[in-house]
Amino acid sequence: MKKLLIASLFSPLLLQAQNNDSLFIRRIADNILNSRSAYNNLYQLTKTIGGRLAGSPQMVKAEKWGAAALKNAGANEVILQECMVPHWVRGGKDKTVVYYTDASGKKQSKELNILALGNSLGSGDKGVKAEIIEVRSFDELEQKKDLVKNKIIFYYGPFEETFVKTFQAYGKNSVYRGAGASRAAKYGAIGVLIRSMTHAMDNNPHTGAMTYNDSFPKIPAAAVGLRDVEWLDALLNKRKPVTALLVTHGKFLPDTIGHNVIGVLKGTEKPGEVITIGGHLDSWDVNEGAHDDGTGVVGTIEVLRAFVAAGYQPKHTIHFVLFANEENGARGGRQYAEAAKQNNEKHIFALESDEGGFTPRGFSLTAPDEAWNKINTWKYLFEPYGVYEWSKGGGGTDIGPLGRNLNTPMAGLQPDSQRYFDIHHAASDVFEAVNIREVKLGVINLAALIYLVDHYGL
Amino acid sequence: MKKLLIASLFSPLLLQAQNNDSLFIRRIADNILNSRSAYNNLYQLTKTIGGRLAGSPQMVKAEKWGAAALKNAGANEVILQECMVPHWVRGGKDKTVVYYTDASGKKQSKELNILALGNSLGSGDKGVKAEIIEVRSFDELEQKKDLVKNKIIFYYGPFEETFVKTFQAYGKNSVYRGAGASRAAKYGAIGVLIRSMTHAMDNNPHTGAMTYNDSFPKIPAAAVGLRDVEWLDALLNKRKPVTALLVTHGKFLPDTIGHNVIGVLKGTEKPGEVITIGGHLDSWDVNEGAHDDGTGVVGTIEVLRAFVAAGYQPKHTIHFVLFANEENGARGGRQYAEAAKQNNEKHIFALESDEGGFTPRGFSLTAPDEAWNKINTWKYLFEPYGVYEWSKGGGGTDIGPLGRNLNTPMAGLQPDSQRYFDIHHAASDVFEAVNIREVKLGVINLAALIYLVDHYGL
Repeated sequence: MKKLLIASLFSPLLLQAQNNDSLFIRRIADNILNSRSAYNNLYQLTKTIGGRLAGSPQMVKAEKWGAAALKNAGANEVILQECMVPHWVRGGKDKTVVYYTDASGKKQSKELNILALGNSLGSGDKGVKAEIIEVRSFDELEQKKDLVKNKIIFYYGPFEETFVKTFQAYGKNSVYRGAGASRAAKYGAIGVLIRSMTHAMDNNPHTGAMTYNDSFPKIPAAAVGLRDVEWLDALLNKRKPVTALLVTHGKFLPDTIGHNVIGVLKGTEKPGEVITIGGHLDSWDVNEGAHDDGTGVVGTIEVLRAFVAAGYQPKHTIHFVLFANEENGARGGRQYAEAAKQNNEKHIFALESDEGGFTPRGFSLTAPDEAWNKINTWKYLFEPYGVYEWSKGGGGTDIGPLGRNLNTPMAGLQPDSQRYFDIHHAASDVFEAVNIREVKLGVINLAALIYLVDHYGL
Repeated sequence: MKKLLIASLFSPLLLQAQNNDSLFIRRIADNILNSRSAYNNLYQLTKTIGGRLAGSPQMVKAEKWGAAALKNAGANEVILQECMVPHWVRGGKDKTVVYYTDASGKKQSKELNILALGNSLGSGDKGVKAEIIEVRSFDELEQKKDLVKNKIIFYYGPFEETFVKTFQAYGKNSVYRGAGASRAAKYGAIGVLIRSMTHAMDNNPHTGAMTYNDSFPKIPAAAVGLRDVEWLDALLNKRKPVTALLVTHGKFLPDTIGHNVIGVLKGTEKPGEVITIGGHLDSWDVNEGAHDDGTGVVGTIEVLRAFVAAGYQPKHTIHFVLFANEENGARGGRQYAEAAKQNNEKHIFALESDEGGFTPRGFSLTAPDEAWNKINTWKYLFEPYGVYEWSKGGGGTDIGPLGRNLNTPMAGLQPDSQRYFDIHHAASDVFEAVNIREVKLGVINLAALIYLVDHYGL
């Protein structure tokens, strides 16, 4: 077996094929590195459209822009695939004021830098006012459950520093953002404040999606900037009681029609078999959605542009998808998989870019052993462009439904994650936070993987 | 051979050793990731001391600060090793004004964003004024040599985008900064302007060292910000003649005494054998020297602090060196090697960090085959911390003399290089451009390599 493998590694035909692959990827890479297209597209999406939550007027603009950009990049066809999306609005300025008595007995107050969590319902204009109870975990909440009634719960779950990959810290802590409100409301809390999930030592609060458990009152919930978190934690260690006024205005308007924007490059040999690459077009309302997921969007468009510029005619049909609603509902990806199933499409592979536009490190894959082994033989082609890490279990929110419902093998690009949570869901996720060469290196690796899957199948 | 290797891989003793190494590195890593020491040290160095060119009052402060920081981190002893350093000063505000006639025949002028090159001599207060001749290379300069007399030469060597590793673009283009002035002066030019060596699309000029060839007049030389470079290039394609006034004030004061600041951790088994780790304490005058080389300095101190915190007692003596003068003379490293030779010290390994505080990618090594092969068996210990790339030929400006004169095996940390030339030698190399987790990951890999060399020898 080993001998066979070694023999085949040196067969002239295989060497020729490897050389061709390497040269093709190099050609694509040079084109992408020399092009200003990704830079210009990202600038337009972030600076002329800006924040674009599903249902917002900006998202309508973004869809139009995306369709034009895909067409301009050389799509044979652009499909606007309808999709009902949630329509949550922030509804006004979020506000928290903390009241306490200082060491000299004087009453003091301080306004905190906060953002209501996405999908949370407003407090009413008068807000809620109550004593703050700090807990570091759900375990501590359970221990203190008798103290929680009519209080505001402050979840201080530190964003752990010792995970080298920061998504592990996020995975561990996002439960407080997602479920913290209802867990506290169960015991009678009237509001929650969450430590922003970030390592950054600035004071930007980081929003993000939460969900209510319908069994309990839907109380207001907001994330607090890190400097204010540290200040509040220190205050609560010294003075009690500390009370807070929490005012938020979030509400849901009726669901509305959004669109997955799909650029199609028709397959020459197997047009009925589809490869998907995509990122999500929506973003939070409070920033420009540059890394999340502007770089995934312009990366998707850039792979298309570079293929067309290289005259590449894929064997399979490739869908370049700008998904409609990832942040607060994941409806875009669900609709895409639903339509694929209804239309009896065969989806052989899906690739998502939604972890920021940082220098690429690897791919994470969910695929049967055979596909995994095949991809393993391609690894050396990615190393010149910085990708060394291949792990199992990956995909993404938007392509997940394809994997679950159609058994489509799927992968997610994994950029370096150190800076992601500095800006994730915060006002600082803007064009200026992006280094375009890092984005381009990611795009090269996306293009290489799509090319190899298209060329050799999976 | 292969069987032997496999057998030895599973020997209980070796497995135990591997496990111990992995655990020790993890312990160091956790300590570094949880500590605020690197962050605080970098803040002090950049924000309270700032730019610190050799010979400047800030550099005197930096030496004092460095000695205290090394002592504080747990050095057994701190040595201030004297070293004569050059004392170049900018001497005033650099200025370039471009004069031309617009399409309607009207006289126009525009001031460019420039910085005189380090070590360049001033134009005199009145400056030099002449027509600008643009060349894209030394080849083009040779072709145009008869047109150069009494002109200002504008070197427009594009910083190539297609190198994945940006240091290759730098290597290719830094000749214009280093030698461009004298190459043009040879044919009678009276000043030179250089395209800043950067991919960034802002307008910060990037300074850096140049050297004169004593055979030719020492004409003024400055780097131009990228937006102004693009503007000037476009202008020169449309209108001629375009003239420029170039005013710079650079001069050398007499050489002065600087110091390599050396923290010593005494060896317990072989105190006479030295391992060196270091970065350079000096920086350019126009920025905070955060990435270049503040992160190398605080990284060096952090390795010491983490070793001491872990109770690690090295077998060999380790020197933690903050070098005196890298930017405009490389005298610190030369003095360090000179002293080592005079004192008959045995230096078994040297490691430098001077390519910015970005997420680590690899190490480049200059070492005999035996040492290279030994290090190769350690690679798996670095992968959890992001280091996959091991290449030959590396070292660094400051440890180079040790390698050349004492045959010391040497290595340089190689962080991701995409963002380095955005800020390199420009006003934008400030504390805020650093992500401290990226720095810390680099430090973990530095510590791991020093530990392994100390533990197993080389």
